[in-house]
Formats: sequence, structure tokens, C-alpha cells
Amino acid sequence: VILGGGHAKVEEAGGDLIVGVDVGGTNSSVGIVDGEGKILAQARFPTQAGDPAETYVGRLVGVMRELHGRLQGAPPLQAVAIAAPAANSREGVVESPANFSWGRINLVAMVKRAMDLPVSIINDGNAAALGEARYGVASGMTNILIITLGTGLGAGIVLDGRLVQGHTSAAGEFGHMALVPGGRQCACGERGCAETYISAPGLRRTVFELLAERVDESPLRRISFDELTAEMVARFARDGDAVANAAFEKTGDYLGRLLASLVAAFDPEAIVLCGGLVNAGDLLVSPARRSLSEHVLERCRGVKLLVSGLKEGQAAILGASWLARETLQGAVSA
Amino acid sequence: VILGGGHAKVEEAGGDLIVGVDVGGTNSSVGIVDGEGKILAQARFPTQAGDPAETYVGRLVGVMRELHGRLQGAPPLQAVAIAAPAANSREGVVESPANFSWGRINLVAMVKRAMDLPVSIINDGNAAALGEARYGVASGMTNILIITLGTGLGAGIVLDGRLVQGHTSAAGEFGHMALVPGGRQCACGERGCAETYISAPGLRRTVFELLAERVDESPLRRISFDELTAEMVARFARDGDAVANAAFEKTGDYLGRLLASLVAAFDPEAIVLCGGLVNAGDLLVSPARRSLSEHVLERCRGVKLLVSGLKEGQAAILGASWLARETLQGAVSA
Repeated sequence: VILGGGHAKVEEAGGDLIVGVDVGGTNSSVGIVDGEGKILAQARFPTQAGDPAETYVGRLVGVMRELHGRLQGAPPLQAVAIAAPAANSREGVVESPANFSWGRINLVAMVKRAMDLPVSIINDGNAAALGEARYGVASGMTNILIITLGTGLGAGIVLDGRLVQGHTSAAGEFGHMALVPGGRQCACGERGCAETYISAPGLRRTVFELLAERVDESPLRRISFDELTAEMVARFARDGDAVANAAFEKTGDYLGRLLASLVAAFDPEAIVLCGGLVNAGDLLVSPARRSLSEHVLERCRGVKLLVSGLKEGQAAILGASWLARETLQGAVSA
Repeated sequence: VILGGGHAKVEEAGGDLIVGVDVGGTNSSVGIVDGEGKILAQARFPTQAGDPAETYVGRLVGVMRELHGRLQGAPPLQAVAIAAPAANSREGVVESPANFSWGRINLVAMVKRAMDLPVSIINDGNAAALGEARYGVASGMTNILIITLGTGLGAGIVLDGRLVQGHTSAAGEFGHMALVPGGRQCACGERGCAETYISAPGLRRTVFELLAERVDESPLRRISFDELTAEMVARFARDGDAVANAAFEKTGDYLGRLLASLVAAFDPEAIVLCGGLVNAGDLLVSPARRSLSEHVLERCRGVKLLVSGLKEGQAAILGASWLARETLQGAVSA
């Protein structure tokens, strides 16, 4: 378990404490959040998504207790707020998320049994959207799309200040919008889905496509598909490797095209990019910005493309906790 | 001026009367609507979008007065509710709609000056969405997309029971989402926009593409591009022409693919199709349904594809009037 330090003294904590959880495909983050949206303590641990859900919940509960115990003199926890992939907030379940061996489980009931606290769950993309809308670069804006680029392409939608979840809590699956008709195979069974191009694995696929197409020498030719990570591609790109740079150019171009379609559909004030792939910074964001401005509808030229300033997991933890707090206070029904 | 008959006696009219207008690229429709959403009288006249806006407003005001005069013993009109393309409801203006010579005009102020009544304006796609959500096949549903297929591809979005207009009133421009990267030229300056394939002109372009690709005889080979209409293609298709049938198959397939992306983005309960092209019925809707069910996300298989039961202009007239009435009653701020 990797534990991060708290960054606020407990005496300064505003309001009751909620523990927020961001369940990621690789790592999970836990944070204890006060009433003003300050994360008093944060920890991260490997999800090990191949393990049974019971094992995961056992570890999660251990981390939550340990983290709360470290805040000496802290008031008791009031609620647990979970952000997870493929979460159905109405039923409290996680619906067989891709890359997890869990199947369909009632994560809310499982955590409730162990913690004896109110537990809520929300789709991770939606949680990040709320976190960014309340506490991030888009705070104060009422029409925003938040796009998370990591293992997949997830998203959250805030319109007229309200979270949009759709009829079956599946709104914002931008990763499965068609980007290239008849294009790359997607784990969902379709071809050409946006996330087969615009995600960490999508970047890797683009690298291998370029290695096949081109003849120039590149250190990327000495790395296997399974070994290659987005971080490595970014490092090579910064060192001047032409293939790595071309891969980011292409990925950014795809991203800008997808964003242009999303702007036509949603007409947001801003789009916020977050997630591991965005750590590549301008390698990805510059071509995306160029491509967006080339393809966006004239009428919507003013749309802002922003990069999240929150750290991994923080947006989702803050968003899930904010919604849980509003629900506890009866301000919204979730 | 083509005048349709009223279909309810004025004595039965519920509540105050509002006159709704649907400004179309070819024809405009005017309807007098009572408090229960009944259209008491309706008229249609050619828009002649090449004329100056002043000329149009003069004719529109004449039709509204004539129509109201025909309802003997009717109470006075309470408001004018306009549905128009490229309308910005906050500023009351129409922003240089494609295929109109109007430029940017304050249509609300112009009509107000002539009628001396409260006047409101709303994007035509949004108006149709509200009309369908309140009085049409999707009445009672809270998450719906309404797609209008005619000269272009317009849309309206209702989420959680509320109309979504976006940051600059441009939400729902699905016609300018990318469907075929690097595909057909669009009037907006881009390539491959959905409406270059899925619209009456899109169908016509597909017919000509097929005539170029194939060698089989077809009555379509004796008609020029400018002469050809969607109605003609539908007639030939029903008469068994293979090219016409293939053109509808292809258009329906494109439509189903676009809908699958929209379902991933919005997760609606239903999508309602309306507009002139939908008069082709199963020629278009059957392949669209097949293609949607082939490409839609597994999680969202339950989405309903519905065809509007309202006549040309009625959904927009009803939606604009409903919103105007709610605004008059202070129930919503538009």
C-alpha cells in the first residue's frame, strides 16, 4: 500500500468527513475529504482486478480504516463515496467492467456490510466530471465535458450545471463512438471505436502501425508490444524519436476530430482532459488543439480545451464525495 | 398561401391561444395552439428564403392574422412562438441560417414590432424535441433525442426532462458530427459530416455515387442531379429499382451508425425520427434499425427507435408554443 501524506491539519478540516474511493483498472485511490473539498489524506493501492471482488473489498476497507486512523483527532467518517467504472448508481452495482474479473456485483452492499456507513457509488467518469466542475479548472462553468484518457476513454457530462447520466447510467461512453468506420477492433466487439485510437493502448497500437509503415530507425523497434507503455513513448518523443512524435501527432489529431464531433453534439463551454495519457502534456494536447480548431463548427470556435490540474484519482474522489455530501444533506437525490 | 383547416372547434379550446411558427428552408408552417396542445388551425406558405427578412416577416404576419381571423369567436392571441434554424433564444436572433439570405437578424424584435405581443424564438430542432417529448410518440419519456431529416440533419435533446441547448444554443448539431473521415464536402467547410450522407441531399449524393459505381439499368439514369428529389428515389425504390433501394439501404446504414454513436454519448431512452426524409418509411427506417442494433453498445440495446406521428411542422409548432406558455406562466425561464 502506497500512502500519501495528508495535506491539511485535521483541526482545520471543514465539516464532516467523507471517504472517497476511485476504483481504477490498475490502481485504486482513497481520499478523506472534508466539507470544503480538501483531501486531508490520500492513499493508493494496486487494484489487482483479477482477484475476486471480496478480496478487493477486504483490502479497500483496510486502507480506508488505516487512512482514517492516521488522522489523529479526526471526527468519524460520515459516508463512503465510490467512483468506479461501469457503475450503476441507482442499483448500487458495478456491471462487469472491462478488465475486471468481478462480473456484476453489488459493491455498495459489500462495502456497507463492512463499514456500517451510508455508501454511494457513481460512474468514475461522472465522478471526475463533478470533481472538475466543482473544484477543478472548469469550476464555475455549467456546460462541460470531462474526458479521461487512460486504459480506456471515459467521460463525464455536466450540462446546465447538472450531471447527465442517461437512461441507464451509460451516458458519456465517448470511447465507443465510431471514429474510423471499419477501423481497429475494440474489446466491445465493434470496429473503429474512439478508444482504440485515443487511449494509452490506442497510442501503442498507433506506434506499431507506424513501425510497420515506416522504415526509419527507432528505439521503439527494440520493444515488444506488451512491454511498451505510453510513458515510454512520451520519453522517446521528448528525446526526439520521429516515430514516437508521429504517434502522438496522430493520436492528438484523432482526439481533436473526436472533440469536434462532441462540440457539435453538446456545445460545451469547455472540455477538460484528464487521465494518465494526458501526462504526456503538449505532445498530445498541441496536436489535439490544432485538430480541434481545424475541424470544429465555426459557431463553436470559442470552446475551451483545458487540462485538469488535479492529481490521479483526485477529481473522481472529490466528485463522488461532493455528490455523497449533497445527498446526505438532501440537496440532491442520486 | 396554403391554408389547412382547423381541427377543433374554438368553443372546445382549452386556455389561451398562442400562435406557433415553424420557419423551414422551403416552407413555413403557422399554427394556433390552445392550452392543451391542440392545433386549432394551421397554414403553410413558401418561405422564399432568398427574399429579405422584412418581406418574409410581412408575409408571416399576414398569415398569422388571417389564420386567427378564421377562428370566429376565438380569444385574442397571447404570444408568438417561433421555431427557426440557427436561432439563439437568449438574444432573439437568427444567426445567418444556411440556405437563407437573411444574415444575422433579430426576428423576435421584427415580429414584436408588427404584432405587439410577447415573442419568443427557439432553435427548430429544439422546438421539435419539446413537441415530441410533450405531445408525440415519446411523450412521458425524460431522455430523448429527436432527429429531423430533411434538407439537413437537425436535432433536439431532452435530458432528465429538460431541453439541452448548450453554451451557445448550438447543441444537437449532429449533422456536423464526423461520420466518414475525409468524406464528402459539407457546406460548413468540413468533410464527411453526417448530413452529407443522412439527409435528402445526402440520399441524392448516394444515388449518384451508386450510378457511378454500378452498371445496371435504372430510371434514375435519366434524371439530373438538380431534378432528383428524395420522394422520387422513394417512388423508384417501391417500384423495385435496385439502385434506389441500394441508396436507401446505404443511407439507413449510415443513419444506424450515427445513432449508435449518439446512444454511446447520450444513453437516451428513445430516439425519434422526423422530417421529410422519414416519409420514406421502412425504406429508410428498416436498414437504420438493423444497423443501429448491429453497432450499438451492448449495455444500451434497449434504446427505442421511434418515428414521429406528428405532421410537418407540428412538432416544432407545439414545442415552441409549449415553451412560450411555460415562460408566460413563469414556470421556466427561457
